[in-house]
Order: sequence, then C-alpha cells, then structure tokens
Amino acid sequence: MSKSIKLAILGLGTVGTGVVNLINDNLAELKRRSGRDIIITEVGTRRQRDDIDPSIVQNDDLMAIAASDNVDIVIEVIGGTTLAKDIIMHAIKNGKHVVTANKALLAEHGNEIFALAEANHMHVAYEAAVAGGIPIIKVMREALAANKIDWLAGIINGTGNFIMTEMRDKGRPFKDVLAEAQELGYAEADPTFDVEGIDAAHKLALLASIAFGIPLQFDKVYCEGITGITLQDVNYAEELGYRIKHLGFAVRRSSEDGLQGSAGIELRVHPTLIPQDALLANVNGVKNAVLVNSHPLGQTLYCGDGAGAGATASAVMADVMDLVRVLGPNDRSSHSEHSNHVPHLAFMPEELSDTLVLRAEQMITGYYLRVHAYDNPGVLADITRILSDAGINIDAILQKPAHKLGQVPVIILTLPVIESQMNLAIEKIEKLTAVADKVVRIRLDELA
Amino acid sequence: MSKSIKLAILGLGTVGTGVVNLINDNLAELKRRSGRDIIITEVGTRRQRDDIDPSIVQNDDLMAIAASDNVDIVIEVIGGTTLAKDIIMHAIKNGKHVVTANKALLAEHGNEIFALAEANHMHVAYEAAVAGGIPIIKVMREALAANKIDWLAGIINGTGNFIMTEMRDKGRPFKDVLAEAQELGYAEADPTFDVEGIDAAHKLALLASIAFGIPLQFDKVYCEGITGITLQDVNYAEELGYRIKHLGFAVRRSSEDGLQGSAGIELRVHPTLIPQDALLANVNGVKNAVLVNSHPLGQTLYCGDGAGAGATASAVMADVMDLVRVLGPNDRSSHSEHSNHVPHLAFMPEELSDTLVLRAEQMITGYYLRVHAYDNPGVLADITRILSDAGINIDAILQKPAHKLGQVPVIILTLPVIESQMNLAIEKIEKLTAVADKVVRIRLDELA
Repeated sequence: MSKSIKLAILGLGTVGTGVVNLINDNLAELKRRSGRDIIITEVGTRRQRDDIDPSIVQNDDLMAIAASDNVDIVIEVIGGTTLAKDIIMHAIKNGKHVVTANKALLAEHGNEIFALAEANHMHVAYEAAVAGGIPIIKVMREALAANKIDWLAGIINGTGNFIMTEMRDKGRPFKDVLAEAQELGYAEADPTFDVEGIDAAHKLALLASIAFGIPLQFDKVYCEGITGITLQDVNYAEELGYRIKHLGFAVRRSSEDGLQGSAGIELRVHPTLIPQDALLANVNGVKNAVLVNSHPLGQTLYCGDGAGAGATASAVMADVMDLVRVLGPNDRSSHSEHSNHVPHLAFMPEELSDTLVLRAEQMITGYYLRVHAYDNPGVLADITRILSDAGINIDAILQKPAHKLGQVPVIILTLPVIESQMNLAIEKIEKLTAVADKVVRIRLDELA
Repeated sequence: MSKSIKLAILGLGTVGTGVVNLINDNLAELKRRSGRDIIITEVGTRRQRDDIDPSIVQNDDLMAIAASDNVDIVIEVIGGTTLAKDIIMHAIKNGKHVVTANKALLAEHGNEIFALAEANHMHVAYEAAVAGGIPIIKVMREALAANKIDWLAGIINGTGNFIMTEMRDKGRPFKDVLAEAQELGYAEADPTFDVEGIDAAHKLALLASIAFGIPLQFDKVYCEGITGITLQDVNYAEELGYRIKHLGFAVRRSSEDGLQGSAGIELRVHPTLIPQDALLANVNGVKNAVLVNSHPLGQTLYCGDGAGAGATASAVMADVMDLVRVLGPNDRSSHSEHSNHVPHLAFMPEELSDTLVLRAEQMITGYYLRVHAYDNPGVLADITRILSDAGINIDAILQKPAHKLGQVPVIILTLPVIESQMNLAIEKIEKLTAVADKVVRIRLDELA
C-alpha cells in the first residue's frame, strides 16, 4: 500500500470548508483516480470546530502546522497578504508543497514566493487563484504549452460580470445592482476590489506571466472599473451590436502590428464593448470565462464558475491531485522528480523575459465615444475632422435625437488607435464650443 | 545540458505537416517552456519529401522507425485502425512513448493498447483524438480529477456542426450544405463517418471512459446522425426557443433519478434540441465544444477548433510537452517515474468499473415530436391522452396552420421520459386514424 497523502487546511472559511466537504463527498473518486489515500491530518482554525472529524488535529498556530511532520501539502485559504505570506514561506522552507487560492498574495509577492519554492525544490500550486473552478492555469501552462500566445481576454471577476449582466438584461442602474450583489453575497460590504477592477488586475497579472513568460508585474496593470458605466452606454452599445463587459486583456504587440505602436505587452483591465454574438459576450451572471488566442491553435474559450466554495475547492484539489503524482508512491518529493515539474510561471525561471510592459498611452484599442453637443449643424463635421486629422478611423456613427434641451448625443465607434492619439483628439473635441460635456469613452475590441 | 527529446512523426499528411510547422514556428517557445531541445529525428513517409530539413531521416518503413534507437516519442498520425495499431504496439514494445490523434483506433482498440502500455511502463497520449485543439482530455483527466462527473454534452464533430449552423442561419436544406462542406474540405467524399455520427461516437466513447472510469465501449454507443433533420424542424425548434445541435452525451444515472429508470451510464450521439441561450447552442460553424457537469464544480465549457492542422498539432505537441517532463532531464522514463503518470483512462487501471451501459430503450431524455394529423377536432385530445396515459408530461405544444391540404402539424415538447415508454406512446399515436405520417422525434435536453 502506498503512503497516504497528508493535507493541512489553513483556514476554515467558505473555501476551506468547501475543500473538507469535497474530500468527504468524493473520497472514493479521489482514490480511484490517484491510487492513493488522501487524508486531512491538520486544520488551522482560530476557534475549535465541532463539525470536523475528531481524528483531524485542530490548531490555531498556523505556523506550527506549516512545519508539521504530519503534513505533506499545506493548503492556504486564509487570504490576505501578510500572515498568508509568512505561512507559505515557512511551509516551503519546511519541505511542504503549497496549494493556495490567494491571487492578491501571488500577484504582489509571487516572484519572491516562487523563487523560494524553486530553491527548496517545492511547488506552489495556484489553480484556484484565477477564475475559480475554470482550469485556466493548467490549460495555459500545460495544454497550450506548444503555442505562442498572442493575447487573452477574460471575464475574471464574477461580481463585475453579474452587475454588467443585470444592467443590460433588466435595465437597472449600477448602484441598484451593486446593492443587490451585496445582499446576495456576491460583493463585499466594501466592493472596491471588485468594482474598481483590482481583483481582476491581480488575476490578469498571473495570466499574463504564464502567457508570455514574464515576471509578475501587478503594479504595471492599467486598471479601470465599472463604476462609471451608465445604462445609456449599455443601451447604445446594444443598439450598435455590441455588449459592454468588464474584461482583463493581456496582449503581445510586435512593432509590426502597425499604427507605429511600440513593441511590448499590454496589461489592462477595463470595460469593453465586444460583439454581441461573441461567446464571451454571452457569458452571464457570476460566470467567468477566458478567451485565449494562440498560434497555431487559434481561439479557445474556457467558461465556468469563477468563485464559490465548490468551484474553488475543485481547483484546490486538482492541484493536490497533481502534487500527489509528484510526491511519488512512497516518498516525499525528490530533487530529480522536481526537476520535471511544470514551471511555476509556465516558462523555465531562467527563461523569463523582461519584455517591456507598455504604458497606458502606448496601448492600442478601438473606442466607443459618446459626445454631447449642442444642436449645431457644424459640430459633427468638426468632430469627425479632429478624429480624421489624428489618423483615427471611424467605424460607425449613431446620432440620437436630443435627450436634453438642445443637446444631441453622438456615438462614435473607432477602429484601433494608439491611446495617446485618442487622448489628444478628445482634448480637442472637448474644446469645441458646441460640445457640452466631457467625452465618455469606453474601449472596444472585436476579439478577432 | 539536458538530453534532447527525439521525435518521430509517422505520416506527413495535414496533421503531420502541421506538427512539423509548429515545431519550426515555435521552437524558441517550446524550449523556454520545457528547458529542453525538442527535435524531429525521423519521419515516416511513403514518398521522399523535398520540403523536410535534410537532417531528418525520411523512411517508408514505419515499423523500423517505431523501433529506432534514435527516437524517444513516436507520433502516429497516419490514421486507420490496422497499420496504425501494429505500429503503436510495436513502438510500445520497443520502449517508445506514443502520441496519437487516432480516435477510431483508440475507441475500438484502446483497452488493448493501454494495457500493453501499462505493462511496458510506456504512455500513449491522445489529446488530439477528441475535439482537436480543445484540451478536453487533460481537463477531464487532471483539472476535474477531484470531481464526480455527472454528465457531459459535446459538439464533437465539426462537420456536423457546420451543417446544422448553416441550415439554421441560412435556411438551407441538409443536402445543399453537405455539398458545400465537401467542397470546403470539411466533409469527406464519403461523409458517412461525420453525418451518421460515427466519428462523434468514437470520441464519446473516449470521453465517457475518462469521465466515469469505465473501459472503452464504442460498440455500446447509441448513434444517430443528422441526415434526417429537416429545415422544418430546425425552424419549429427556433420558434420554441430551442436550437438543434448534433451532440454526444455521456450521462451517469443513479436509480434515484426518478422515472423508475435503471442505474447505469447512457452513451448516446444524436441531434438534440437545447435552449437557444445556452452557450453550447451558440457554438457555431466547425467549432467544437464540450460542456461538463461535475460535483462540486458545476458546469464548465471548453470551446475551440475541433480539427485542422494547427489545432491538432497544438494538441499533439501538448502531449509531447507532458512526456518531456516524464522522460526526465537525462534519461528515458524509468519505472518509478512512470508510476506517477496520469492514468490512460483517468482512473487507475484496476479501478475501472463495469458499470452497466444502458440500452437505448432505457435512456431518459425529453422529446420534440412533430405529428401530422388530419384536421380532426378530436386528434389533439387523443394525442395528449396517449402521452398522459404513458406518464409523459407535455412541456409545450405548438399547433401550426395546415401546410398541406387538411394536415396540421402539431409540435409537442415533453419532459424527460424513459425511451421505451415514448416508443409505446408513439406507436399508439401513429395508429390514430387522424394521424397521417410517422411521428418525427428529436431528443431534447435543457442542459440543466
């Protein structure tokens, strides 16, 4: 009989309890697949829990668990970036593999954590950190390993997607839907991380690293939330055949991409108009999805639950099942087995490249512009001339009847343009005397 | 420097050439990810090719290549189930790992091939055999390894999906679209494998095994093609909020599923009405997609190109990249490393179960029925009474004006029912004197 695999679960909140439940529910399946007994030996919890099998040691000293001889794999699901970091570093130094769902910690301190893991021949697995139960980390690190990834676009924050879906489907304003999301437990009391795009930016930093083989650079992600999206824009977008989704993009730009753009990588999170008939536009509610464009495979889409106890536990335990194979039938991991593991950031550590991450002004996207102009016959000509002078091509124009006395909203869709050029053009448009307000701009991508 | 990985590619048709091109295009990426040199040492081809790097040995003796000392991994892309089988068995016996895209071979002889591979501590990898570039094998064997899979539904034949998409989008009849698919190279001159569902049944047999941990049982797959689908039914389905797709289903039924059904597994390929707003219903053209419902993860969807040189080469080389890790930094695979590999059919060989595969009459699905009745005031009452007596619940009825003199098509959607009961009810309906023709029936699934 092979040695049992001993797990410690640090944190018994929603996710930790989900992992306990998964192991209880699917024990036979886990064993049929892995050929091993997988048992929880220790759990880290502040208060003693009555609902945990009495054979499992409960301990509030998480650092002690991370170094326990009775543990092969430490599952960190306490969250946060301070104690969680100390625990993971301690576990690695004590010869434990680590599984974590902590996107904020990895996005901000992953380079350091992975380096320590490499030095100690340990693995830190993090499937649950991005897009919950969707196996996007495994897919990008392993299944697409022979591809050159050109770009990816993802709905990677369920709260934001729920809000955008409800606004469109039911014509409800942002604030109303946010309040409901908070009632339903989809959004926190302080929703900043979700609605300002910070959570999505954490995940995007991870996805971009494994897509392109670059170090984690969360601080370079351009990040724009959904708090400024109005029903008016949602409806105009629909009328023009588009849908507004909050997306994270990681794009590799070569200097041959035209438009005199710079070579480098775009990391950006922002509301985006995408074609209504794209599958990604039809991923609704709290679902997540990631669209990856790679050569020679082309586009593939991965969709599912991005959060919740079951989905997250599924991802955590998929990592455990991978580690079970690394751990070998009789022993803990040896150096020689380790040398064959999938690299933490998909590429060999010494092969990570310092490809330039572009500044916002260097990024290239299409645009949706909403301009409010006084009903002046020459204003449309002025606006289109400014855009044309800036080398910006207009793809569609929609001029609606005035909705405020004497003001006519003009909606303009543009082809891709370098952001700095668009900034200049918008500055000029806003200086026109016939233009009443700030120009509303939302990025647009055909996903082609 | 680690030892190079030496590949032999047997067959230089579309897929084999795609693999050669991928390696040429993405060599740097492959090395950055694997830390190894991956080189083609030999290719098996009937006629000498000028477009192949002269350092690569060209040989028309495929059995010799399969045993060559200059090869670590044999990539079989010649297709067919006779020579391909001999070559793969020979390669395994000679200590080569094998990568194949051959769904027909594995569906029909996989149990034997995998057993030989296990006995020889070799791996036979087959990501490319199902759904082309979509990494559904890796996802189900590894990413969902902690889940209990309840059912899956897949668009796993691109030709069939192209035909169904064109029929709906453009209102073109089946024969027209098939002819175009043949011109475009999507369908073979003899389209039987695609349009009769045999190709999909091969893939379904593989998916079902890795979903449930059962041996390959291609001969037990219920298989129905799309040749009988008319525009009339496509349009009625749309009118009722559904779309007809050609799907493969693998469903685990417990005896608690109600309806006095039998416990066991349903393996079936057939046209199916699914809700229009399901993502799966919006996977169009030659794209493939697989929807997997598992516990605790819930539903996840995987979508992409199911065929073509690039997509297939991507999957073949993903398998190679996995094997590179198994092969270790300096040597060919050893027994101890092998013991940690992902089992061929996802579950440990000794854990495969002999769960009953249900006969067609035991399967449970909803139905779309089209009944042509003479305009007789009592006939609808007769039909609904027959269904009701058989315990079949009606979900919707659509009665259209007569389109032939005196004949009124009645469309009925039912809730799920055991097929044998539906067979009896239809027999009775067809005996009604007011019913003119055979009842047209198409299965229906809410994908819930």
